[in-house]
Amino acid sequence: MLKCTSCGKEYPLRKPCQRCECGEPLELELFKGVPGIGRSIWERFSQFYPFELDLEYSLGEGDTPLTKAKRLSKELGVRLYFKNETLNPTWSFKDRGTFIGIHRALELGFDKIGTVSTGNMAASVAAYGARFGLETFILVSSSIAEEKLKTLAPYGARVIKVHGNYGELYYKSLELGQKKGIYFINSDDPFRVEGYKSISFEIAEEIAPDYVVIPTSSGGLFRGIVKGFLELKESELIDNLPTFVAVQAKGCSPLCRAFNEGKQKIERFENPHTIAHAIENPYPPSGNAVLRLLKELKGLCVAVSDDEILKAQRELAREGLFIQPASATGIAALRKLREEGKIKAGARVVSILTGSGLKFLDAVKEGKVRECRIEELGECL
Amino acid sequence: MLKCTSCGKEYPLRKPCQRCECGEPLELELFKGVPGIGRSIWERFSQFYPFELDLEYSLGEGDTPLTKAKRLSKELGVRLYFKNETLNPTWSFKDRGTFIGIHRALELGFDKIGTVSTGNMAASVAAYGARFGLETFILVSSSIAEEKLKTLAPYGARVIKVHGNYGELYYKSLELGQKKGIYFINSDDPFRVEGYKSISFEIAEEIAPDYVVIPTSSGGLFRGIVKGFLELKESELIDNLPTFVAVQAKGCSPLCRAFNEGKQKIERFENPHTIAHAIENPYPPSGNAVLRLLKELKGLCVAVSDDEILKAQRELAREGLFIQPASATGIAALRKLREEGKIKAGARVVSILTGSGLKFLDAVKEGKVRECRIEELGECL
Repeated sequence: MLKCTSCGKEYPLRKPCQRCECGEPLELELFKGVPGIGRSIWERFSQFYPFELDLEYSLGEGDTPLTKAKRLSKELGVRLYFKNETLNPTWSFKDRGTFIGIHRALELGFDKIGTVSTGNMAASVAAYGARFGLETFILVSSSIAEEKLKTLAPYGARVIKVHGNYGELYYKSLELGQKKGIYFINSDDPFRVEGYKSISFEIAEEIAPDYVVIPTSSGGLFRGIVKGFLELKESELIDNLPTFVAVQAKGCSPLCRAFNEGKQKIERFENPHTIAHAIENPYPPSGNAVLRLLKELKGLCVAVSDDEILKAQRELAREGLFIQPASATGIAALRKLREEGKIKAGARVVSILTGSGLKFLDAVKEGKVRECRIEELGECL
Repeated sequence: MLKCTSCGKEYPLRKPCQRCECGEPLELELFKGVPGIGRSIWERFSQFYPFELDLEYSLGEGDTPLTKAKRLSKELGVRLYFKNETLNPTWSFKDRGTFIGIHRALELGFDKIGTVSTGNMAASVAAYGARFGLETFILVSSSIAEEKLKTLAPYGARVIKVHGNYGELYYKSLELGQKKGIYFINSDDPFRVEGYKSISFEIAEEIAPDYVVIPTSSGGLFRGIVKGFLELKESELIDNLPTFVAVQAKGCSPLCRAFNEGKQKIERFENPHTIAHAIENPYPPSGNAVLRLLKELKGLCVAVSDDEILKAQRELAREGLFIQPASATGIAALRKLREEGKIKAGARVVSILTGSGLKFLDAVKEGKVRECRIEELGECL
């Protein structure tokens, strides 16, 4: 059964529904279960999924490292961990959602899939579409950089540059997909969300966090992580829920604005502009759903500036982790919350690192480089 | 005890020796042991390392997926697996060697490290140098591309462009490192090799391969993988050694040339030129050592052309795996060996995928992209 996250209306699972008639996103019930053994998170938490997964097609998504922060733990006075999602098969968290989303498409009998994205999700869907041998449509914005196209090309997907309002494309693709027999696994598809909840399972296998800090754009990742912890609680596998922190870039923060103004619904963020492109969504399709979760679970919402993001990106590199700007927002937010006294010293915090720094080299400044002749190298060291 | 791979001369472990007086590489004895339990390969195979590893500093290197080939298994008539080393912390296999190499440097009392590399190893040493809080020197070639520098900059290492014979720099850096108190963890450092052997341990935890196909440049990776399987055999954890296949690019194949001509020593490969930059080493420092292993263990050596490499790169993307050209050489070689009847049908083959495709986008052609207006999208799908 799929249920609306807002009005509660129910839809049978056999139908390819992705959003409620009321406009809000659907989601699956909370699963309860007992973890099993296995090398893969999909094996260990198989009871938490509505269908059997074909692990022959897995690319090894999930089971990413939880890495202890060294300097930043000391500096910020918390016990800080990074969930390093850059070590997924296409180097972002999207792969978890894509893998589950494709299973949904196949269950419904689709042999074509697609997505609307110019970044991490595009590469992920293109890769898994190839893996499963499905015809794959990637709808990209007309302003996409050549570099991004190069990361899609090898997989052999059908890439279409769409001119017009890119925001509308999310809804348009779902509508056309139904007609044309293409299952669009967009950013907050209910089954994509099911994929993301595996992040929570893995965190809980290692530690019991007080806070989980989540870069938030469409809201799919946030919803997935929250659902994961809710299921762990329902299953009596954890005692307490962590506090969930949604982080956005100041230059595109429709969620934080609505949250701070106490609104029930988000509004389109006009003239968005941030270096954290991966979370630059001016009208997130799960925005209202995240707003409801933040209120219900007493979460926090923080917006950080591009300067703070770039600083955090450098700090993360000093921990040995080179991540894209969107992934650095969590550390910028944590610093702010510590300064404001909203997170107490010694708290256990997990910051989700969503995607690799290799994905967006434009954001990186060339460092200082010295030059010398090999004969003079001795004086140079 | 460190022992020369050629003349057998022994050196005490307390001295910072990296190469024998005779010019050939040193290596540690074969370890024998029993695997334990643990989340990390370093825990499970701790008996196979000469010192305790500080896992607080680990970035989650190792424990990469072994992914089943779908199409290529059918097409090539073998049971093919990919060891996906692109899912290491800096997206290449180098991290395993860097992690162990730094432990060696610390054991000897060094507080400065370095390497000679313009690619995967440079990023890896820069990242782990930052992680361990060590002053880190990266010696790059004067012709390094700006893009590559950008992947190093965030870590804060001291990057030095060296003008002159880049090949000499390997030896020069070891010599200067001893004087200046910098431990250079170069490509075939004995402890780097110890790191790479963990790849074999992980493969053996899952399957018993008949062949392991290894892109080979300096020879460090090849030596590490062979040493790992030799230790498994000595420990009676496997019954048979696989056949080891060293793969090079035709445009830079000093090893294959010497092997095919039955020579005892490699010769410098003049005017090297290949798209597989990561394995473009015209005079590999472990070349002779690899040659000895190939002869002793009845291995194979195969050189493949740039066209074959690019074709293989596309084929791997159709499996969902986007890898750098050097990593595609294995599939190109396997195709050749199958055509020549040197590998029999049904054999279990593991191909090592050394580094991510994101590292070298220049090699990728932009694919076909269609354009349409959002209003016409229906006709476009």
